[in-house]
Amino acid sequence: MSSLSPFLEAASGQEPRHTPVWFMRQAGRSLPEYRALRGEGSILEAIKTPEIAAEVTLQPVRRYGVDAAILFSDIVVPVAAIGFGIDVIPGRGPVAEHPFTSRSDLTRLRPLEVDQDIPYVIETVRHVAAELNAQDTTLIGFAGAPFTVASYLVEGGPSRTFTKVKALMYQDPELWDDLVAVLADLSISFLRAQINAGAQALQLFDSWAGALSPNEYARFALPATKHVLESVSDLKVPRILFGVGTGELLGQMATSGADVVGVDWRVPLDEATQRIGNHPLQGNLDPALCFAPVDALEDATRDILRRGAKAPGHIFNLGHGVLPETDPDMLKRVVDLVHNEGRTLAKEAQ
Amino acid sequence: MSSLSPFLEAASGQEPRHTPVWFMRQAGRSLPEYRALRGEGSILEAIKTPEIAAEVTLQPVRRYGVDAAILFSDIVVPVAAIGFGIDVIPGRGPVAEHPFTSRSDLTRLRPLEVDQDIPYVIETVRHVAAELNAQDTTLIGFAGAPFTVASYLVEGGPSRTFTKVKALMYQDPELWDDLVAVLADLSISFLRAQINAGAQALQLFDSWAGALSPNEYARFALPATKHVLESVSDLKVPRILFGVGTGELLGQMATSGADVVGVDWRVPLDEATQRIGNHPLQGNLDPALCFAPVDALEDATRDILRRGAKAPGHIFNLGHGVLPETDPDMLKRVVDLVHNEGRTLAKEAQ
Repeated sequence: MSSLSPFLEAASGQEPRHTPVWFMRQAGRSLPEYRALRGEGSILEAIKTPEIAAEVTLQPVRRYGVDAAILFSDIVVPVAAIGFGIDVIPGRGPVAEHPFTSRSDLTRLRPLEVDQDIPYVIETVRHVAAELNAQDTTLIGFAGAPFTVASYLVEGGPSRTFTKVKALMYQDPELWDDLVAVLADLSISFLRAQINAGAQALQLFDSWAGALSPNEYARFALPATKHVLESVSDLKVPRILFGVGTGELLGQMATSGADVVGVDWRVPLDEATQRIGNHPLQGNLDPALCFAPVDALEDATRDILRRGAKAPGHIFNLGHGVLPETDPDMLKRVVDLVHNEGRTLAKEAQ
Repeated sequence: MSSLSPFLEAASGQEPRHTPVWFMRQAGRSLPEYRALRGEGSILEAIKTPEIAAEVTLQPVRRYGVDAAILFSDIVVPVAAIGFGIDVIPGRGPVAEHPFTSRSDLTRLRPLEVDQDIPYVIETVRHVAAELNAQDTTLIGFAGAPFTVASYLVEGGPSRTFTKVKALMYQDPELWDDLVAVLADLSISFLRAQINAGAQALQLFDSWAGALSPNEYARFALPATKHVLESVSDLKVPRILFGVGTGELLGQMATSGADVVGVDWRVPLDEATQRIGNHPLQGNLDPALCFAPVDALEDATRDILRRGAKAPGHIFNLGHGVLPETDPDMLKRVVDLVHNEGRTLAKEAQ
């Protein structure tokens, strides 16, 4: 038996002892033990408190038996830590009091000094890594891809149209390139810090890349994403790239340097493999299916396991983050089904 | 020369005298003449005032020389008219004070009595039709597809996750089917009223269908959409079906009874034709490109004209609505370019 965890087996294209599963946003508001620990306090403050952040990271591992823990953190932690002025509002997301609007705002961004700026992240990672049995459960570190982080800085918060960030790209492409270059360096430092402290895989969240056309993605988002992923290749950990609404971008994402490509619920995984080629996939249950009757949830889970078998590796996940109103018992059912039936269904479908 | 307008020529797969172009949300907040006429007053009140609604509908025809006028209206006009309790908030969209949550809310929906409930719509259509030279400019009537209208009723407003509406679908599929059946009938009545009063084409907006997975769309959205489109087939006007983020749904949308399929900016039109088959297409410039330098805007417009030439007909449009901050001069440039170069570029690309 391999000394790798099921997650790392699947991420490296080896046959895993069971199909690995974890959930984006598995740590957090959907769990009663999280709400009991934290109430409705500041998310960034919790992230800055290693005992709490570590406990929150571990809660879903204990409850669900998932194959990966993902650090309780946020993609805006680096920009917040260097003092850009951004907070994470529960139920809303990152909000910047003074959005990035012009070249002078570049002075509000500087390189990340890991030991000074985010010692709590290092401590949390060490804490969690020490608690986990690494042969069973993989610790994933993460960062935001430059486009998605930039979208929060420029829009000032979550957006549906991404008007301001697209206007900036088109009106001042040099400023855009300078902005994403700084953000890429921040994400590189943030990822390296997490891996050096003990995380064994990384995910780059380009959550909103799907707002871009293929041409826009190629010009304005992919180069900086590539730079991030290539700059951490020496760390020799699997690199996952994820975004929502990326159906038309999957081919480009496969060229980014990512080892594993995350797919949202819109693209069936067998179709995704046709667009992506020889990469393990991660995904892709619609988070809303957790509100369905158990039968429908389980049918959809099995369908995804069969379609995922066409890829050279499949890490089961939702197609986006756990919705806050989700009943944890539904996710537990998914984990058990994936573990119990995943390999059998995959072999039948191959 | 055909007696049809360029819009109707392209929509019926004939070679148009020039490539037709119009813009979703061409009437409204982006135009100074609209703001001068209306200020920031209630949108539903303006829709209820035929002289104003007709004038607003005609403003972009005069300014841009577009090939189609689309009625100044809203997809929630029918539900508002029968008293569901929904308003359209400028800059935000439709908001329902008491969202649809349970079976008892069905009693808040009843069939549309066109003459009593929306006499102003009839009058506005007649007004506009009388002003337009129908051989040059086509008047488009529209309605919301049942899923998208339901999303506003159930979510209570615009949504990013569509959690409540998906939860309702899965938890009570019978109630869902009953809800969309009522909404389909409302849209059918609304469309028939507009065509009977003089509109010459129709568009069904399923704007948020792209939030659904292919399986969800097949089960929860397509059947009611099909019912609407098939129920107006006797009117013998082109039927356009449009939504955003529908890359994975285009094949299904082609089976809906739609004559023309609208495509957002994410899917290049040549790729869209491969998924859709033998239907004219409408689209698909990213509305954000209106903030780009003129060269970039014109290059993107030409690229779309070339790719659209692979379809059996192409009506140029944006990939979604005009953004409120758009400079009308940029849209005017697009219209002129499409008219001047559209057929030549299409022939070169065919």
